[in-house]
Amino acid sequence: MRVVGIDVGGTKCLGVALDDSGAVVAQDRRSTPRGEGSLPGLIDTLEELAGALGPFDELGVGVPGLVTNEGVLRAAPNLDGVADLDVAGLLAERIGRRVHVDNDGTCAALSEWRLGAGADSTDMVLVTLGTGIGGGLVAGGRLQRGRHGFAGEYGHMVVDPDGPPCPCGRRGCWERYASGSGLARLAREAAVGRRVDRVLEIAGGDPEAVRGEMVQQAAREGDDGALAVIDDFGRWVALGLVNLTNALDPERFVLGGGLAVGADLYLDPIRRWFGELIYQPDLRPMPEVAFAHLGERAGAVGAALLHTVRS
Amino acid sequence: MRVVGIDVGGTKCLGVALDDSGAVVAQDRRSTPRGEGSLPGLIDTLEELAGALGPFDELGVGVPGLVTNEGVLRAAPNLDGVADLDVAGLLAERIGRRVHVDNDGTCAALSEWRLGAGADSTDMVLVTLGTGIGGGLVAGGRLQRGRHGFAGEYGHMVVDPDGPPCPCGRRGCWERYASGSGLARLAREAAVGRRVDRVLEIAGGDPEAVRGEMVQQAAREGDDGALAVIDDFGRWVALGLVNLTNALDPERFVLGGGLAVGADLYLDPIRRWFGELIYQPDLRPMPEVAFAHLGERAGAVGAALLHTVRS
Repeated sequence: MRVVGIDVGGTKCLGVALDDSGAVVAQDRRSTPRGEGSLPGLIDTLEELAGALGPFDELGVGVPGLVTNEGVLRAAPNLDGVADLDVAGLLAERIGRRVHVDNDGTCAALSEWRLGAGADSTDMVLVTLGTGIGGGLVAGGRLQRGRHGFAGEYGHMVVDPDGPPCPCGRRGCWERYASGSGLARLAREAAVGRRVDRVLEIAGGDPEAVRGEMVQQAAREGDDGALAVIDDFGRWVALGLVNLTNALDPERFVLGGGLAVGADLYLDPIRRWFGELIYQPDLRPMPEVAFAHLGERAGAVGAALLHTVRS
Repeated sequence: MRVVGIDVGGTKCLGVALDDSGAVVAQDRRSTPRGEGSLPGLIDTLEELAGALGPFDELGVGVPGLVTNEGVLRAAPNLDGVADLDVAGLLAERIGRRVHVDNDGTCAALSEWRLGAGADSTDMVLVTLGTGIGGGLVAGGRLQRGRHGFAGEYGHMVVDPDGPPCPCGRRGCWERYASGSGLARLAREAAVGRRVDRVLEIAGGDPEAVRGEMVQQAAREGDDGALAVIDDFGRWVALGLVNLTNALDPERFVLGGGLAVGADLYLDPIRRWFGELIYQPDLRPMPEVAFAHLGERAGAVGAALLHTVRS
């Protein structure tokens, strides 16, 4: 059996074809259409990519945003002009067969659970640390989507009601701290306070130009100020993982997304702060914290596997 | 078939016997042993209560605290001197048959799901608002206990890392705000600030004597200050429910525990703040918010039903 999965991102759509073993046997990509008229454009792009990777027995698509159980994309902050787009229905009409559609975080959770860092776990939380934070959930040995398909939106858990404003309209959402943009924000605040002079130097002296990668660079050089920012970042990541542990008691966290690249820098601070912040640390096994294995393909591979969990 | 369930509380142990329909056909209670020597004392009490309610085909026990999948109570802040007590093993030895043991919040979730306010839902979060906050979880049509049995400890999700200290050793745990003791704390702060003079009057003029029930009384009289405290309390309850919704997308929240008594006062503020704080409120169905049906029996009835979900 050959299955195809496509991951729709803010800038590109990545498609993969898998064989029976889950190995990627073909891969292709297209730019994600932008601006006016992007709605039909997106379906065109998906049809084209599916055609390029076919023939196939099953097709799945992962999209960023709230997706209903029927495969309708209700909202996608990173896709221009997309609201209430019936991705599953419209694409099925074009290609003449059923299409499985789900949230990209849920797709990534599925692929890491089946083929990656979450293999052999029954209770796994995948958290994608990218520009924002997304994720997916495996509980009791099953992929969980919630009642309406919206589970795993961890980034908008409020960790400080008086915290910085979030584009979602609330304040102090976890992704204001523990994402790529959160790391940059923590670093800019430290730069304004002259606590990370080396980072400021890399940024050409402009605190507003500070980016997360600059903190990583300075931290790798051993700069104390940058390491303190990394530690603070690790504390915020741990705080959200602690909240999820109190609610869900997972066996394993799998951290994915763009920030998984700096894993070696964050892992120790995350683990240390997790031990500080968790309820009853001496009386419970700590969940494992691992970084994702499937890299940028996680969403597309998971989309290709959706047929195994959707009826 | 006759099944017996016992709920171990900080002050009393409540036992019930159920018939095949789930109806309570017998009920009995004993004081929870306290102080030195409480460990063997607790097993004695459970054996006695089970004997008084027997004969039975299945026996379950709900206990407050972290319970392993094997029925060992790792820690119970509300039971003197209890740590690493093998409730399931010790009691099974006494009565000569298997005993099912689980966390009291998980038991309450099971009974409300099967017989109470959560009936017919596939994704339900039970939150007990008592002195602290506990709870249980149904996801994907199954009771979820987490990998080690510790899921549902919602009270220790951190909602403000700079918030008031929690007896658990962390700061700003949800139960510092949204429990019975949280309501009293919010009211005492308002009393010190002279924002709830009527409540202060009921408390005999001493802010330290202010209790949650006094706020409820003044609010029922229509006192604006007390209603403002209730509104603030509703905001904190909603904040935690929002965080759980972002993670789990439940169909229904069931609120139980001692504060369910004041349900009519809180429900409107909780619903309103939920709409303010949830991500993408216009694009998603709101989860239902209901109050528990089974009252003080929820834990015992759920304990009696544990045999239906444990292998």
